[in-house]
Amino acid sequence: MKLWQNPPAAVAPPDPLTERIEQFTAGADPILDLELLPWDGLASKAHARMLAKVGLLSQEEAAALIAGLDGILALHRRGEFTISRADEDGHTAIENHLVQRCGEAGLKIHTGRSRNDQVLTALRLYSKERTSACTAALQGIIAALEALIAAQGAVLLPGYTHTRKAMPSSVGMWAGAWRDAFAEDLDLLGHAAGLIDQNPLGTGAGYGVPLPLDREMTTAELGFARVLYNPIHAQNSRGKYEGILLHALAVALADINRMASDLILFTMPGFDYFTLPGVFMTGSSIMPQKKNPDVLELLRARYHEVAACEAQLRTATVNLISGYHRDLQSTKEALMRGLGTALETLEMAALVVQNLRVNEEACRSAMTDELYATADAYELVQQGVPFREAYRIIAARFRQEQKND
Amino acid sequence: MKLWQNPPAAVAPPDPLTERIEQFTAGADPILDLELLPWDGLASKAHARMLAKVGLLSQEEAAALIAGLDGILALHRRGEFTISRADEDGHTAIENHLVQRCGEAGLKIHTGRSRNDQVLTALRLYSKERTSACTAALQGIIAALEALIAAQGAVLLPGYTHTRKAMPSSVGMWAGAWRDAFAEDLDLLGHAAGLIDQNPLGTGAGYGVPLPLDREMTTAELGFARVLYNPIHAQNSRGKYEGILLHALAVALADINRMASDLILFTMPGFDYFTLPGVFMTGSSIMPQKKNPDVLELLRARYHEVAACEAQLRTATVNLISGYHRDLQSTKEALMRGLGTALETLEMAALVVQNLRVNEEACRSAMTDELYATADAYELVQQGVPFREAYRIIAARFRQEQKND
Amino acid sequence: MKLWQNPPAAVAPPDPLTERIEQFTAGADPILDLELLPWDGLASKAHARMLAKVGLLSQEEAAALIAGLDGILALHRRGEFTISRADEDGHTAIENHLVQRCGEAGLKIHTGRSRNDQVLTALRLYSKERTSACTAALQGIIAALEALIAAQGAVLLPGYTHTRKAMPSSVGMWAGAWRDAFAEDLDLLGHAAGLIDQNPLGTGAGYGVPLPLDREMTTAELGFARVLYNPIHAQNSRGKYEGILLHALAVALADINRMASDLILFTMPGFDYFTLPGVFMTGSSIMPQKKNPDVLELLRARYHEVAACEAQLRTATVNLISGYHRDLQSTKEALMRGLGTALETLEMAALVVQNLRVNEEACRSAMTDELYATADAYELVQQGVPFREAYRIIAARFRQEQKND
Amino acid sequence: MKLWQNPPAAVAPPDPLTERIEQFTAGADPILDLELLPWDGLASKAHARMLAKVGLLSQEEAAALIAGLDGILALHRRGEFTISRADEDGHTAIENHLVQRCGEAGLKIHTGRSRNDQVLTALRLYSKERTSACTAALQGIIAALEALIAAQGAVLLPGYTHTRKAMPSSVGMWAGAWRDAFAEDLDLLGHAAGLIDQNPLGTGAGYGVPLPLDREMTTAELGFARVLYNPIHAQNSRGKYEGILLHALAVALADINRMASDLILFTMPGFDYFTLPGVFMTGSSIMPQKKNPDVLELLRARYHEVAACEAQLRTATVNLISGYHRDLQSTKEALMRGLGTALETLEMAALVVQNLRVNEEACRSAMTDELYATADAYELVQQGVPFREAYRIIAARFRQEQKND
Repeated sequence: MKLWQNPPAAVAPPDPLTERIEQFTAGADPILDLELLPWDGLASKAHARMLAKVGLLSQEEAAALIAGLDGILALHRRGEFTISRADEDGHTAIENHLVQRCGEAGLKIHTGRSRNDQVLTALRLYSKERTSACTAALQGIIAALEALIAAQGAVLLPGYTHTRKAMPSSVGMWAGAWRDAFAEDLDLLGHAAGLIDQNPLGTGAGYGVPLPLDREMTTAELGFARVLYNPIHAQNSRGKYEGILLHALAVALADINRMASDLILFTMPGFDYFTLPGVFMTGSSIMPQKKNPDVLELLRARYHEVAACEAQLRTATVNLISGYHRDLQSTKEALMRGLGTALETLEMAALVVQNLRVNEEACRSAMTDELYATADAYELVQQGVPFREAYRIIAARFRQEQKND
Repeated sequence: MKLWQNPPAAVAPPDPLTERIEQFTAGADPILDLELLPWDGLASKAHARMLAKVGLLSQEEAAALIAGLDGILALHRRGEFTISRADEDGHTAIENHLVQRCGEAGLKIHTGRSRNDQVLTALRLYSKERTSACTAALQGIIAALEALIAAQGAVLLPGYTHTRKAMPSSVGMWAGAWRDAFAEDLDLLGHAAGLIDQNPLGTGAGYGVPLPLDREMTTAELGFARVLYNPIHAQNSRGKYEGILLHALAVALADINRMASDLILFTMPGFDYFTLPGVFMTGSSIMPQKKNPDVLELLRARYHEVAACEAQLRTATVNLISGYHRDLQSTKEALMRGLGTALETLEMAALVVQNLRVNEEACRSAMTDELYATADAYELVQQGVPFREAYRIIAARFRQEQKND
Repeated sequence: MKLWQNPPAAVAPPDPLTERIEQFTAGADPILDLELLPWDGLASKAHARMLAKVGLLSQEEAAALIAGLDGILALHRRGEFTISRADEDGHTAIENHLVQRCGEAGLKIHTGRSRNDQVLTALRLYSKERTSACTAALQGIIAALEALIAAQGAVLLPGYTHTRKAMPSSVGMWAGAWRDAFAEDLDLLGHAAGLIDQNPLGTGAGYGVPLPLDREMTTAELGFARVLYNPIHAQNSRGKYEGILLHALAVALADINRMASDLILFTMPGFDYFTLPGVFMTGSSIMPQKKNPDVLELLRARYHEVAACEAQLRTATVNLISGYHRDLQSTKEALMRGLGTALETLEMAALVVQNLRVNEEACRSAMTDELYATADAYELVQQGVPFREAYRIIAARFRQEQKND
Repeated sequence: MKLWQNPPAAVAPPDPLTERIEQFTAGADPILDLELLPWDGLASKAHARMLAKVGLLSQEEAAALIAGLDGILALHRRGEFTISRADEDGHTAIENHLVQRCGEAGLKIHTGRSRNDQVLTALRLYSKERTSACTAALQGIIAALEALIAAQGAVLLPGYTHTRKAMPSSVGMWAGAWRDAFAEDLDLLGHAAGLIDQNPLGTGAGYGVPLPLDREMTTAELGFARVLYNPIHAQNSRGKYEGILLHALAVALADINRMASDLILFTMPGFDYFTLPGVFMTGSSIMPQKKNPDVLELLRARYHEVAACEAQLRTATVNLISGYHRDLQSTKEALMRGLGTALETLEMAALVVQNLRVNEEACRSAMTDELYATADAYELVQQGVPFREAYRIIAARFRQEQKND
C-alpha cells in the first residue's frame, strides 16, 4: 500500500494499466532500496529517538519503533525483507512494516520527515561508506607505487612523446608520476567527501517542517559532520553532490585509464618493460598462442562506465526549477552503480601495481641512442654552443645516420 | 573451465587472487549472457548446420549439437541454465555443456568461430528484436497523437516562446508537431536498424577464418539482411553500431522529454489545458494535498539514462587501434540497458498520449488578448500599413494598456 | 536599433549596464551572422519575391528590396557589411539597412516572418552547403582507400587483438575495413542531410503566420526538398536536427580517430608498416632526433572537438518546453564550429590516405610464427582433430617454445 | 621558420600541400597564442633570469633577452605583434623575434625548456588569473543574494515540488539556498585553483632536462605556490587539471542554470513573484506585445557551453599512453573558451541578482490554502493524532473540496 493512498481500504486489486504504471514508476527502486535499507533503518532509528526527545513520540513509542526497525534490519541481514512493487519503495515498505508490527507508533514514524529527505539521508550515509572504501583503495595504489619506486625506481626506461621514443625516463619517474596523480585524486575525493558529509534529515520535502525538530541531534547520531541547513538547497543538492562525488572518482579512474594504457604498451611483446603474473592474463577461444592483458584493458574501460554515470547525474536536473522532481529518482541507480564500479576498479588497480614486475634486461636494451639526442645537444651547450645551434648540429648528425642506414 | 585453459586437467581450485580477478573480468557477463542465451543458441544452431554443409562436421555431429543446443534452450526457458564465474561467459558455458552432453562433437562447435564474432552475432540478433519492439511503440505514439488530432485538434491553445504566451496554437498544431517529430525518429531508427542488420558470424576474432565457411547460409538462416563482410570492420563495428542505435533511440527519447515537459506545464494547476487520469498521478508521503505528475517526470528523466548509455558506447573505443579489446565487453551492458530503458519509455509514452484529455474550458479561457497582438498587426498590414509600422502601433497600444492597469 | 524598440526615436546612448547586457545577449552573433549573411540574403530575396506574388508587396517594392539585398550581398563580398552590437544580429542589420536604402519597402520586408524562422532558414541553407562539402570529402577518403587496395592490397600485415599480434591481416583487409566504415558513414550523413533539407521559412515565431504565404514557392526557390510544415515542430527541430547532423559527422570522425590510431602505431619505429612523407611530420623544439606524427594525432583529436559541439547541441534544449527559447542562440556557434572542424578533418584525412606508403619489407618481417597458430590448429582440424583438441595441441607447442627460449 | 627545421636556410616557399598541412596543424594557435602572449613573455623573462643565475646565460645575454621580451610585450600591447602560420605558434614567434633582435642570445632562450612546458606554464598563469576573476564574480553573486535576504527575506513564496505548489517557502529560503550553493561552489573552485597553482616550467618535453635548473627560482618569480615536480606528471596534468577547473566552473554554472530556471518561471505573467528591470528584457521582431527574459535564458544556456568545453577536455586524452601528444593542442581552445564563458556568465548572474525586485503583492496572493495542508496535518499531530492518520484526514478534506468545486 502506498503512503499517499486514501482511503487505504479502497485499494482494489490493480488493473493492468495500474500495474504497468507501478512497474514504470518503481523502476529499480525495489532492488536498489534493498541495498540502501541498512542506512535507511539507521536513519529511521535516529529519527525516532529525536522525535521522542522533542516530545513528538512517547518513550514507549520510540522504543517500539526502534525495536521494529531492528527487526527489519535483522530480516534484511537474513535476506528476508522484501519490497513489493505496490509498496513503491523501501521507505514505504518500512513504514508499512512498522504499522503492522507497532500499531499506532508505526503511523507516527513519518512525523516530521518526507521521503525526499529520507532517501537523501540514506544515500548520503551509503555514499560516505563507499567513499571511505574508495579512499582506502586509492591509498593502496599509492603505497604499491611507492614500493615499486623503492625497489626498482632507478631502472631506466624510454620516455615517449607522440608515441615515439623521446628522452630517458625511469621506473621511478613513471611510477612517481602516477603516485603524484593519485595523491591529488585523493585530495579531490576528500573535498567531495567533505561536501556530502552534511545531514539533510529534517528538510522534509524541500521546504522544512513546521515542527521543533532537533537536527543537531540526528546529525550527531548519524555521524555527519554538520547539518545541511537550507531545505531547498538540500533538495537541489541531490544530483549535484552525487555528480561532484562521481566526478572525483572519474578523475581517479581517468588516471587509472592512462596508467593502464601505459602498461598495455609496456607489456606488449617487443616492449616487455613490465610483466604481470599469468593470473592477470587471459587466452583466446580461437587463437592458441594468445596471452591477453584483459585486466589492464578492463581497468582502462571502467573509466567510461563511471563517466557515463556521472554524465547522467550532471544533465538530469539541468534546465529544471528548484525543488524535488521525480526525475531525481534516476540519480539513485547512476550513483550506486558509479560508486560500485569505481571501488572495484581502484581495488583491482592496487592489485595490478602490487604484482607488476620490471624486466630490467628489456628496459636496458630499449635505451637506444636517439633517447640521448637532447643530452648530446646539452653537452654542446655546456661547451658554449648556443642551444638552437647545438640542436641543429645534433639533428644533422641524426639525419646523416638515417641516410647511411 | 575456460576455453583457453591448458591443460584443462591442471585447473586447481582457485586462490583468492584468481577469484577476485575472475570476478573482475567476468563482471556482469554471467547475468547479461543469460539474457542473450536464446540468441546465442539460435546462432550456434545455424553455425552447426553450416559446418555440416561445408563438411567440417558430419551430419550426425551437427544433429547431436543441435539437439544439445535445444536442450540448453529448454533448460534456459525453465530458468535452469546457469553460467558460473569460472565459465567466464555464456559462450564458454554453452561449449562446456555441449562437450559434456555430446562428447567429441562438443569439442568441434567452436570450429571456425571466435567468441568475438559469436557475441557480436548474439548482440545483433538481440538488438534487432528490441529495435523492432521500439519501432512498434513509436508507431503507437504516432497513432495516439493522430487520434488526439482527429478528436480535438481544433481546440485553441496558447503558444509559448521564451516560456511566455506568444501566439495562438491549437491541440492539432501541438500534437501534429510531436507526430511529425516521432515520424522522423521512426525513420532514423529505421536507418540504424538497417545498419545493424548485417551478419558478423564467420569473421572470427577480427581477421576471418582460414576455412571454407558459407557465410551466406548463416545469414539466411538467422534472417540477417546481408553478410557483414570485412572482419576488421566487423570488430570495429562493435560499439559503433550500438552507439548509432542508441543515438536514434536517444533522439526519440529527447522528443519524449520535451513533450513531457510541455505536459508537466500544461497540466499544472492554473494552466490545466490537459489532464491525465489519476492512475498516472502519485501523491506525497508528507503533503496531503499533492497530485504529482510522476509518470511525466519519469518520461522526461529517461532520456538522460539512455543518453548516458550512448555516451559510454561512444567514448569507450575512441583513441584505440582497430581490433578487439576487452574494453568492448563493457559495451554489452550499456547497450542492453539502453535498449530496455528506451523500450519501456516509448511504450509508456504511448499510454500517456492515449489517456490525455483536453480541458476545452481551460484552453478557451487561456486565449487572452496578447496572443492576438501579431494578428492585430497583420490586420493593419492588410489595410496597407507597412509591417514594422503596424508592429509599433500595436506595441504602443499594449504599452498603454499596461500603464492603465 | 533593435527591431522591437519602441518608439525607435527614444533610443538614448546606452548606459554601461545596457552595454554589458547587449554584449552578453549578442554574444558571438555579430561574427557568426556575418558568415551566415549570404544565406540570409538569399532567403530574404526569396521571401520578398513570394510576398509580391501573394500581394503583400507590390512588384516595385519587391524589386527595390531585392536590389537592396543584392547591395548588401555585394558589400559583404567586399568585406564592408558590418553588424553592430546595437543591431543585435544580422537579421536586424539587414532590415535596418533596407529601411535606410528602400524606405517604406524596408519596413515591409519582415511581413510574414520572424527572426526565428529567418535564422533557421539561413542555418539550414548553410548546413546543406557544408554537408555537401563533407560528403565530397568522405568520398575522397573512400576513393583513396580503394586506390590503396588496388595498388598494394595483397601485402600481408599482422592483425592485432588486445594490442597484441593475433592473426594474419593484409593491407587490403585493413583498408577495406575503413572503406566499408566510411561508406556507411556516407549513408548516415545522407540521412541527416535529407532530414535538414526542409524549408522552415514561413513558420514565423513557431506558431505560423495568419497571412496567405506561399511556402511551396520559397521552398522551390531556395532548393529545399520540401516544406517543413508544422511551425512548432520547426522550432523544436532547432538543436535536434543540428545534433543529428553533427552526430553523423562525429561518427565519421570517430572512424578517422581509430584509423589514425592504427596509423600512429603502424608508422612507429619498430613497426614501420606504413610511412607518410616528411611534410606530414613535425619536429620537436628540444629533441633534435624527433619526427612526430602530428597530423595523425590531430586527426585523432578532432573527433573530441566535434563530439563536444554535438554534446552541447544535445543537452541545450533538454527538459525545456516546446517553442523558441533564447537558449537556442547558443546552438548556432556549436553547429558552425562543428561543421567547420568536421570538414577540414575529412579533407585532411583524404590527403593522409592518398599519401600513405606501404613498407612491404617491414610488413613481411613482421609476419612472425605466432600469427599462424590458429591456421596451424585448423590444419589439424582438416585432418580430423576436433577443434578444441587441436587448439590445445598448438597451445602446448607454443608454451614449450617459450620455455625453450 | 619552425624551430625544428634544419637546415633553416633550406626552407623553400611552401607548396600547396605544405600550406594546407600548416593550416591544419596550426589550427587556432596563431589567435589563441596572442591571448597567451603576456603570460608566455612573463615566463620567458623568469626563465632567462634563472638561466643566468645557474650560469647557462651570461648576465648580458639575460639582460638582452629580457629587453627583447619587454619589446615583444610592448608590441603586443600596441596590437602589433603577429604570429604567422609558418611560425606555427607563439613560442616559435617569440624565439624567432629574439634571434632577430638579440642575435646569439636569442639562440639560447630555449635552453632547458621545451614548448611542452612553456605552453603549460603560460596556460597555468592565464588560468590562475581568470580563475581569480571568476572567484570575485562568485563572491559578487553571494553578496547580492545576502543583500536580497536582508532586504526582503521574510516575504513568503510558494515552494514547489514536481512543478506544483507544495509548502510555504520564502524569499529568504530561496535566496539562501542559492547563497549556500554558490558558497560551496566557491570552495570547489578554490580546490581547483590550488591544484593548478603549480609550476611546470623546467619539466621540458615531459622527462625533465639534464641541466642544473633552479625550478624554485622560477616558481617564486612567477608566483606559483609550488613546483610541479614530476615531469611525466606535468605532461599528464595537461587536460586533467583543465578538466578539473572547468568542472568546478560548470558546477557553478549548473547552479546558475537552475536559479535562472526558477526566475524564468517566477517572473512569468501569472506568477510575477520577481521582476527584472526592462533593460534585462528583449522584444520580438514579430510579436508586438512580447517582453522576453533573454538574459535569464542565456544564463541558463551558458552551462551547456562550459560543460561541452569540459567534456572535450575530459575525453581528449583518455585511452592514450602517458606523455605529450599533439592531441593536447586542442585542449587550449576548450580551456580558454570555457574560462571566458564562465566568467561572463558569473558576472552577468551577479548583475541579475542585484537587480531582482520582489513583487510582494503577487507573492502574497500566491500563498493559497493547499500550501498549508502539511501544516494542517501537523496541527492535528500536535493534538495527538498519529501523523499518517492526520495526513489522511487532511487529504480527505482536500478531496472533498475538489469535488465541491
